[in-house]
Amino acid sequence: MSELRRDPITGRWVIISTDRNKRLSDFRLESVAIEPDEGCPFCEGHEALTPRELLARRRDGTAQNGPGWELRVVPNQFPVLRVEGALDRQGEGLFDRMNGIGAHEVIIETPKHDETLATMSEAAVEQVLWAFRDRMQDLKRDRRFRYIIVFKNHGEAAGATLAHSHSQLIALPIIPREARDEMDGARAHFASKERCVFCDVLAQDQRDGRRLIIDNADMVALAPYAPRFPFETWILPKRHQSLFEDAPRHEYTSLARLLRELVRRMNKMLLNPPYNLLIHSAPLQEPAGDFYHWHVEMIPKLTKVAGFEWATGYYVNPTSPEESAQVLRETRV
Amino acid sequence: MSELRRDPITGRWVIISTDRNKRLSDFRLESVAIEPDEGCPFCEGHEALTPRELLARRRDGTAQNGPGWELRVVPNQFPVLRVEGALDRQGEGLFDRMNGIGAHEVIIETPKHDETLATMSEAAVEQVLWAFRDRMQDLKRDRRFRYIIVFKNHGEAAGATLAHSHSQLIALPIIPREARDEMDGARAHFASKERCVFCDVLAQDQRDGRRLIIDNADMVALAPYAPRFPFETWILPKRHQSLFEDAPRHEYTSLARLLRELVRRMNKMLLNPPYNLLIHSAPLQEPAGDFYHWHVEMIPKLTKVAGFEWATGYYVNPTSPEESAQVLRETRV
Repeated sequence: MSELRRDPITGRWVIISTDRNKRLSDFRLESVAIEPDEGCPFCEGHEALTPRELLARRRDGTAQNGPGWELRVVPNQFPVLRVEGALDRQGEGLFDRMNGIGAHEVIIETPKHDETLATMSEAAVEQVLWAFRDRMQDLKRDRRFRYIIVFKNHGEAAGATLAHSHSQLIALPIIPREARDEMDGARAHFASKERCVFCDVLAQDQRDGRRLIIDNADMVALAPYAPRFPFETWILPKRHQSLFEDAPRHEYTSLARLLRELVRRMNKMLLNPPYNLLIHSAPLQEPAGDFYHWHVEMIPKLTKVAGFEWATGYYVNPTSPEESAQVLRETRV
Repeated sequence: MSELRRDPITGRWVIISTDRNKRLSDFRLESVAIEPDEGCPFCEGHEALTPRELLARRRDGTAQNGPGWELRVVPNQFPVLRVEGALDRQGEGLFDRMNGIGAHEVIIETPKHDETLATMSEAAVEQVLWAFRDRMQDLKRDRRFRYIIVFKNHGEAAGATLAHSHSQLIALPIIPREARDEMDGARAHFASKERCVFCDVLAQDQRDGRRLIIDNADMVALAPYAPRFPFETWILPKRHQSLFEDAPRHEYTSLARLLRELVRRMNKMLLNPPYNLLIHSAPLQEPAGDFYHWHVEMIPKLTKVAGFEWATGYYVNPTSPEESAQVLRETRV
């Protein structure tokens, strides 16, 4: 029997379709292979192929925009939004538009073409999180921006156009719908309970145990109660905090360790799947300290989104979170 | 310069990223080819491979569940929801669920394996619309159901698992998020203006002309102001009406003619693209007659959805609706 489940934050329903229960072997697993690319603009020595760097972790004595780095952040060569100009809002009858002001940056996570979050050291993964934090802290001083999204597309099926390990950051003059839905849901929960809904989920799932995957000193990885996708995983800090970029130092250390472990387990069980990684943090200019709780969403790409999903905004998921959590909880790498 | 545009119904923002302007030749167009399949359960003569038919258009004297039909509707062999049982709602601490009650049906649009909406006659396409209507009229008498979605996945990239032309219908015990967002937006517009927002869009776009594609006696095809996807097209009845299944006979005739023409133009310009077709109609048990306006959404699959889209619920679209409308308006087939 399949089951309808409601996400307690956004109110989004999903169908957990266990009648069509898919074993791991039923997914058409598409493994990500990183092909060599002599013209890769993200490789060490090819710095001239990217715009000039905004931030870099470099060995002492190396020059900007040359070799000798561990991590670089550069503007996206093909930005979806541009940073120059004033925000210009216009109406046209019923319709509203504004010019495409924003920032679009690329975090090049490693100088080596074939490294990934799974093969990099914990310290190198932590440097990636610090780069997110530093760029967010810098960009939020720009009052035109109302939201910053940070995401990673790993593998072509997840939308990556370059194989070399990287993430992206986009600062937006609007608050996106997903963030708005989470904010609205979390605010409503706080209004009736005086508690953070994410803290409540953490407490209930820690008591229950069936959806827990990994935890360490500061962070918990769990399968959400109403996952849109098979093996969808959320990572939440145990301590309540609305903004990713305001986390204390030790939480980045704990997140790096947990994230790397999670990717390694998924790589083993799901055969190096394509995935999207997203940081959900509160908007920049709205107080959300009491009720919003930053977190990371990890979505391996194992299924295709089809008409039903577009028609409804809901999802049919053939794998229950209890099942996927058990698989990942018991994986040893 | 790219541009942010807001959909006047749902409030959803999209980025029209003309900086990355893609010519048609830049899309990795994936043509749908219908391969022969001797074991296809939807072909005439293979009726024993599907569950028993719920509805069929048959030649006189032919027997149910045998050959001699032009169109059949059968229950989905692998339903995401099942029709048997009472709706059972349960709470589990913070979490809410209900059992997977619903209906999941397949409309087999033609007895011939390699026909499509583009090659079928207008009369045969109209029969498909009548089948949608008849099944919706039947299912809405079941008071457990609150919404019926009707959709078509054409081509593997659009989620089709069988190549033989078919659509699907799912009756749900909940109102899906997309329908809820459209209803909320349309209700709010009506509350402030005493007018239907879709009628207002039709009026403004008919005056403006830049986003119009095709129209006929009863129907208009247009590129929406804030499309999520390149070449996204909406088809709206000129006459205000909230429920697809209550349309007058001549509107199905007009819709069939326009839909077939649209698919033929897309096939020519976009090389037989995969696509999703969705009917948006008002919920079953909520009065929406004044403010909601049924319509059809046609989404060719030309791009991949990646991390940005999952993170934000917004979309980056490399093709403006003015550009895609002009291409399709000027196509002759």
